[in-house]
Amino acid sequence: MFKLQTVFHILGWVICGLGGMLFIPSITDVAYGSNDWKVFAEAATLTGFVGVATILSTYTSGDLKLDFRQAHLVITLGWILVALFGAIPFLGMGIGFTDAVFESMSGITTTGSTVLTSLDSLPPGILLWRGILNWIGGIGIIAIAVLILPFLHVGGMQLFKIESSEHSQDKVASMMKTLLFLTGVYATLTGACTLIYYVLGMSGFDAVIHAMATLSTGGFSTHDASFGYFKDPWLRWVAIFFMISGAIPFLLYVKLALGNARALFTDVQVRGFLSFLALTSLAMAYWLTTQREISAFESLTLTTFNITSVVTTTGFSTDDYTAWGPGAIGVFLVLMFVGGCSGSTTGAIKIYRFQILFTFIRAHIKRLFLPNRVLPLKYNGRPLPNDVPLSVLAFLTVFMVTIALFTVVLALLGLDIVTAYSASVTAITNVGPGIGAIIGPSGNFEALPDVAKWVLTLAMLAGRLEVLVLLVVVDPDFWRT
Amino acid sequence: MFKLQTVFHILGWVICGLGGMLFIPSITDVAYGSNDWKVFAEAATLTGFVGVATILSTYTSGDLKLDFRQAHLVITLGWILVALFGAIPFLGMGIGFTDAVFESMSGITTTGSTVLTSLDSLPPGILLWRGILNWIGGIGIIAIAVLILPFLHVGGMQLFKIESSEHSQDKVASMMKTLLFLTGVYATLTGACTLIYYVLGMSGFDAVIHAMATLSTGGFSTHDASFGYFKDPWLRWVAIFFMISGAIPFLLYVKLALGNARALFTDVQVRGFLSFLALTSLAMAYWLTTQREISAFESLTLTTFNITSVVTTTGFSTDDYTAWGPGAIGVFLVLMFVGGCSGSTTGAIKIYRFQILFTFIRAHIKRLFLPNRVLPLKYNGRPLPNDVPLSVLAFLTVFMVTIALFTVVLALLGLDIVTAYSASVTAITNVGPGIGAIIGPSGNFEALPDVAKWVLTLAMLAGRLEVLVLLVVVDPDFWRT
Repeated sequence: MFKLQTVFHILGWVICGLGGMLFIPSITDVAYGSNDWKVFAEAATLTGFVGVATILSTYTSGDLKLDFRQAHLVITLGWILVALFGAIPFLGMGIGFTDAVFESMSGITTTGSTVLTSLDSLPPGILLWRGILNWIGGIGIIAIAVLILPFLHVGGMQLFKIESSEHSQDKVASMMKTLLFLTGVYATLTGACTLIYYVLGMSGFDAVIHAMATLSTGGFSTHDASFGYFKDPWLRWVAIFFMISGAIPFLLYVKLALGNARALFTDVQVRGFLSFLALTSLAMAYWLTTQREISAFESLTLTTFNITSVVTTTGFSTDDYTAWGPGAIGVFLVLMFVGGCSGSTTGAIKIYRFQILFTFIRAHIKRLFLPNRVLPLKYNGRPLPNDVPLSVLAFLTVFMVTIALFTVVLALLGLDIVTAYSASVTAITNVGPGIGAIIGPSGNFEALPDVAKWVLTLAMLAGRLEVLVLLVVVDPDFWRT
Repeated sequence: MFKLQTVFHILGWVICGLGGMLFIPSITDVAYGSNDWKVFAEAATLTGFVGVATILSTYTSGDLKLDFRQAHLVITLGWILVALFGAIPFLGMGIGFTDAVFESMSGITTTGSTVLTSLDSLPPGILLWRGILNWIGGIGIIAIAVLILPFLHVGGMQLFKIESSEHSQDKVASMMKTLLFLTGVYATLTGACTLIYYVLGMSGFDAVIHAMATLSTGGFSTHDASFGYFKDPWLRWVAIFFMISGAIPFLLYVKLALGNARALFTDVQVRGFLSFLALTSLAMAYWLTTQREISAFESLTLTTFNITSVVTTTGFSTDDYTAWGPGAIGVFLVLMFVGGCSGSTTGAIKIYRFQILFTFIRAHIKRLFLPNRVLPLKYNGRPLPNDVPLSVLAFLTVFMVTIALFTVVLALLGLDIVTAYSASVTAITNVGPGIGAIIGPSGNFEALPDVAKWVLTLAMLAGRLEVLVLLVVVDPDFWRT
């Protein structure tokens, strides 16, 4: 059996940090004169207590180096525990256990599906807490995706290993430094987004929460109408800019901050991502002007916002795009799979996997008629290691099979096939809204049966952990030897 | 440029053979006193003439060995040309060009989707021709899958290479011998099926056509109610038996005929396939008895028939299973992807690919937490060559992406999302019926717009050619050098 002490020690720090975060909505509620401050103060105290107790009881003088299995376990348990402790405030407000955990998991996985209604009339503390869940979920996935997943070889992420020193002591220091840089960039971008939102007319409260939901590509809003509440087109373009910012590899921002701007602008993934967004938005905007009586600018704002929102897996909406017709539904269903770049806050398949896939499949097809030709694969100007395409293909297969399984389970629970399928997709890709009257952009997950909500809670977790990390932990062999 | 002479020479023989086949419905129409015999006689003469002319004009004294590119081209053009010449009788009966090619392609790819209505009142010749299209499509795919695809390394088929002599002269002779054996087995099984159908009460005419549609897992019927026209449960169990027979690796029958019965009964793929069918049919039968007032036997007959029909990609139906509820729709949508065994008449993904996938993914997950462990992969008791999982994964990815693309195109043409998606799936998997009011088991493809029919004609072809063969031929590099 491998050592669990280090695992729980790290988890103790995570829970402790969450406890600290829980004081923020408490203070906010005091400032706004809402009685809910007690709920948060209690939740904060309880969470902080468990965190500190765990830290102390698992204290070790050794260093915190994780082996492969410990790393998988920290990630999985980390997300589950934060979702559970993050659900306490919802419980404290009288929301049922199922809904509370669903909402918390949706927040922390930056999915953004909600079971709460009448958001506009909810007390400020709980709205802020949802934003905070999105925000810490965002930095959480960035940290994992940059610092841990590449070493675990999950889904081709080994391609994005950062060069580090040989000495293990320096390694930890350099990782902590990188983490600090990443958090700094993330916080700076969120601050900038808040400021611009505020200057363009959002209330300070709305600006903070929407900025957190934008940068984390989480998509929790304070309004039932989501971003559609804000009619100013420039606010929407700012949101587009910052959703994209949240979907860019954060390591490139660190390089930018260190003076290497070239890395950001010559990156194949970033260029592919931006071209894809621009082309689909333009094409759909053109199509929409032929369908509706709207100006070209209105149309472009509408399509760019909603396409960017779905592709970056944010899940804000400014319009019920599923009412644009069957063609639009088909396109959006496919767009849900795309995702942003590696090492960002986005979920879904992600651009680099499509690019590697395309490179690999093209070579594979050529090999079918030129079996003796040697075709070295390249990505981003460098030779592609042999195990990367295999990892990407394995990820993709597991991803698709998981979606199929969840679809069947949801259909067996009585959901109609479009709702079942799109709920499965939107949960696993961490997008947020699905398709259809119930869970579409103008709908809500509240009406689903409780069992379906638990299934989707699991699906959101699976999606956030790139499915494979969760499968590793539930493999019986993982616990043996 | 590679030599096209050999390609066209072989295609000449194929067209010539099709011409010969066209005389059969002509004679039938004469026997039944239908005036349509002329349509077939003309089609037969025209087709035969083109075939003979092609053979003569491309005659070469060299042997008919094909290189990789020529093989890809023969397969692709073969299916297209047979579909086009096979459409002539439909044209001759006043059916539009789009519908005629759709019906012919559906027949020759053993899909079984139909655009014809009032089948029960159609003249015998055309009904027989549909059965013959299914039947030759079935032996066509068996021949290709056993003799050619394994050498082209398409979708992991290299696993099923038959051991052959070193000398190229013996190779051709041994291949011809195998082809003869395969055709013999196929014809014998079809004969047996016809006989039992007839003994159990079908008319001789219905027995012949349904036997051809059963063994080829094509699913063209002579009745609008499909196999639901025949109420006798034993007829349905006979159909189940022979649909399964059509989905078994035909090479194992050849081994059986040569005295090696063990090969058939110990084959991992066959056992996996039969267990899967039995388990899903039993589970669904149990579920159906809780939903409806029917006996256990009735329920088992109903589920086993329709599940076997979809999994073997036959497409017969005895009931509108999409009316069984959302859970059933979800399950059938997934079942459409399954398929039968390698080297059989079935389409879709096929059992061996799932088995290899499962083996590979299980090892892949273990490697994520035990990176230094060496895990040799095995299949059917033998070590699995490294390139097989990669081929299977590549196939699967291309397969899923193709379905997504066709879904979007069909949705953009105005089809609702369930119809668009299930039409795309059913065409590419060569199953036949889709989901929904229009193209479901009790529906018909006639109502679709013409463009959608052409898209689906292409999709059926792509599916039958394991998608990759078609992609090879449309790769610009294929035509260079």
